[in-house]
Amino acid sequence: MEFHFLGTGAGVPAKQRNVSSLAIRFLQNKGEVWLFDCGEATQHQLLRSPLTLTSISTIFITHLHGDHLLGLPGLLSSRSFQGAKTTVTLYGPVGLKEFVDVTLRTTKTQLRYDLIIEELKPGLLFKTKQHDVHVLPLSHPVSSFAIRFTEADQPGRLHAEKLKELGVAPGPLYAQLKLGKSVTLSNGQVIDGTAYMDEPIRGRTIVVAGDTAPVEAMKEFAFQADVLVHEATFASDQQEQAHDFGHSTIADASSLAKSAEVKQLILTHVSSRYAKDETVYYAEVEQCFPGAFVARDMSILKLSKASELIHV
Amino acid sequence: MEFHFLGTGAGVPAKQRNVSSLAIRFLQNKGEVWLFDCGEATQHQLLRSPLTLTSISTIFITHLHGDHLLGLPGLLSSRSFQGAKTTVTLYGPVGLKEFVDVTLRTTKTQLRYDLIIEELKPGLLFKTKQHDVHVLPLSHPVSSFAIRFTEADQPGRLHAEKLKELGVAPGPLYAQLKLGKSVTLSNGQVIDGTAYMDEPIRGRTIVVAGDTAPVEAMKEFAFQADVLVHEATFASDQQEQAHDFGHSTIADASSLAKSAEVKQLILTHVSSRYAKDETVYYAEVEQCFPGAFVARDMSILKLSKASELIHV
Repeated sequence: MEFHFLGTGAGVPAKQRNVSSLAIRFLQNKGEVWLFDCGEATQHQLLRSPLTLTSISTIFITHLHGDHLLGLPGLLSSRSFQGAKTTVTLYGPVGLKEFVDVTLRTTKTQLRYDLIIEELKPGLLFKTKQHDVHVLPLSHPVSSFAIRFTEADQPGRLHAEKLKELGVAPGPLYAQLKLGKSVTLSNGQVIDGTAYMDEPIRGRTIVVAGDTAPVEAMKEFAFQADVLVHEATFASDQQEQAHDFGHSTIADASSLAKSAEVKQLILTHVSSRYAKDETVYYAEVEQCFPGAFVARDMSILKLSKASELIHV
Repeated sequence: MEFHFLGTGAGVPAKQRNVSSLAIRFLQNKGEVWLFDCGEATQHQLLRSPLTLTSISTIFITHLHGDHLLGLPGLLSSRSFQGAKTTVTLYGPVGLKEFVDVTLRTTKTQLRYDLIIEELKPGLLFKTKQHDVHVLPLSHPVSSFAIRFTEADQPGRLHAEKLKELGVAPGPLYAQLKLGKSVTLSNGQVIDGTAYMDEPIRGRTIVVAGDTAPVEAMKEFAFQADVLVHEATFASDQQEQAHDFGHSTIADASSLAKSAEVKQLILTHVSSRYAKDETVYYAEVEQCFPGAFVARDMSILKLSKASELIHV
């Protein structure tokens, strides 16, 4: 999968960093895109990216502050204008439905695709063959949530070369063996699929958190996640302000990532107070969590099947 | 005054042309800005312009289609975030108040300045010492309006050199004479101000039209305007589509400008169908109304006191 950071700033748009949006593209699933937050001009950022509006199937709004939300009506409208017919499911806090209904009604926008709006609630949000998705409430002046999704485990590689030695030709039997079943050959020999397969490939776990002050429950929620995308609005010089306004510092996010044994930490939602010179910010990241990635607008990270994060 | 074109495209944002917004800056009035329409990412365009959010005093929303409106909540919010304290008056069609109320309430946005929302109705909208502002309904699938503002005439230049010859020293008397009054000097001589002044400087008239198919009443409304800013979404190859959807072609706007004896025509709201190559569009403009200006994003035009339009 790929992480496309469309907006990585906080509060108000700035030249270097737009307001929040992250697109995750599932390469194995026809390039389907899940969007996390949709600040103003997210659709403009998409114009500069390789992603299309049509490919967006699911949108999570972590909380209803304007810098995470105000791009939504325009994005939904342009997606329709461009001819998309496939359903979009929109998840967000209470109030999202009224916002979408009123903005679309006022602007006389008729979407030519189905839009489903669901409320975010703690616990299991949905489960498909590919993923299960869970939600955790965070600590912010308005309801804010973290989203965790885990891919279903995939069967390990089938040892086709060994099967061929036994005289089992590729075909329908392979599909059965891949499911770990036993099959009986025409010569009466019984072959156990599990004996000819690698271990299952563990599904990866990704956590994307909305704006929040440190929350104890995140340690369990993000435990051993492959990737944690977390806000770090401020460096440690602004810790008091950060917590007063329901935000985290670099140290807060790093501390969480360490105690939750997160493999890879991506920091975003960077305050514009560092816009003139982000050196201090980056230095603190390197000190707190060496190897953490600070998202920039339009940066693309690819997560390999072996769960390595590669800068594209 | 200066015309800052922030968004000159139609319907959906494109790389070359953002959705609609025009800022008019009154140089003589402390750089006060009136904004005409506010499509998504208007505040982003302002970041690239010499204008500030604080200087915006008045916003006209010509109609409630998303490409003219969806940047409003973010712009109002960022203006507050940046510390502006001065009142903004917002004019628009019925429905604008609900849109603003719901978007600000949902996003928990508390503006730190007063926001007045007034409904656009045909006729005189308001009159100040500097301007009178009139409104005309147009022809579009939703209520759409043209705004005309005329500057108050200014007194002509006082002939100070002649007054000095008569022994009238600069001072409070000059102010009276400038108002065209007669004053009596200490030596009993009566001086008529009007005899020592140039003709009054005629106030300029500007018309900014929202989206519309051709409307007969515009000929009178825009009569002898110094500048008419009019949409020309399409070239003549799309005339039927233009009128069906309540839009104008280059020929429509040019024909209006000619019959209304408009001095200068500025065309905007250009369809993205010409994005790959606008040559055809420009050629038709030159044919229909030589000297008309096709607005581009971020173009700035200055209207001199002598009513000449200068490309800055």
